[in-house]
Amino acid sequence: MPIVNRVLETSLYVEDLDRAARFYETVFGFKRMTADERLCALSVADRQVLLLFKRGASTRPAVLPGGTLPPHDGSGTLHLAFAVDAAELPAWEHALRKHGIAIESRINWPRGGQSLYFRDLDAHLVELVTPGCWPIY
Amino acid sequence: MPIVNRVLETSLYVEDLDRAARFYETVFGFKRMTADERLCALSVADRQVLLLFKRGASTRPAVLPGGTLPPHDGSGTLHLAFAVDAAELPAWEHALRKHGIAIESRINWPRGGQSLYFRDLDAHLVELVTPGCWPIY
Repeated sequence: MPIVNRVLETSLYVEDLDRAARFYETVFGFKRMTADERLCALSVADRQVLLLFKRGASTRPAVLPGGTLPPHDGSGTLHLAFAVDAAELPAWEHALRKHGIAIESRINWPRGGQSLYFRDLDAHLVELVTPGCWPIY
Repeated sequence: MPIVNRVLETSLYVEDLDRAARFYETVFGFKRMTADERLCALSVADRQVLLLFKRGASTRPAVLPGGTLPPHDGSGTLHLAFAVDAAELPAWEHALRKHGIAIESRINWPRGGQSLYFRDLDAHLVELVTPGCWPIY
């Protein structure tokens, strides 16, 4: 059986693409790799890709030189979590405060990890989580 | 500025939780870490977590011993991509065929990578992608 090496791309569907891209660039330091009116691709730690799609703009197949991108779309207050170091959690709290982002909730996990929850500009539920949450993390 | 180490959790919102979990376990070999009526957490390569949520079942805050999980929800045909080795692409095509999963599209990227696109049982757009797609991959 072949194996998956990792989740490479995670998608969010947003109202205002440029506004969302600036949020993730500014708050998290992700690097913009490509952007047009439909999509903005951000590099996460040079190993993963956070895809921001303009809501409703990918509902038709997109023909590219190398093949066709099938349609997709999404809505809602999707949840995603970013792994951060426990030692950096105070710096994250400071950074969120600086950006005017309210912490909606905190959880202390039985394994010792901690999570901070807050919203992006489209009300997606973003989590910063330190090691000690899952059996694998 | 503190740094994000990686995307740890990626979420999908599904109609039938057990059916979706079996799909991702069977087709991709992900390991079930926890499951209840609301959520199933799958380990991806022992480093990331694919969260499957029953659609509409997380719209109220959930009180846990260590804090409160804020509400979230999602719908649509969300897109996500898994990184795979180029050498394993034929094995993936074979595995998908064996599971009766139709390949909806293929893309050859200018950087040399290849993508296969298909649907999960909730019509999410799943991609398997080999290195040579993004500047960072």
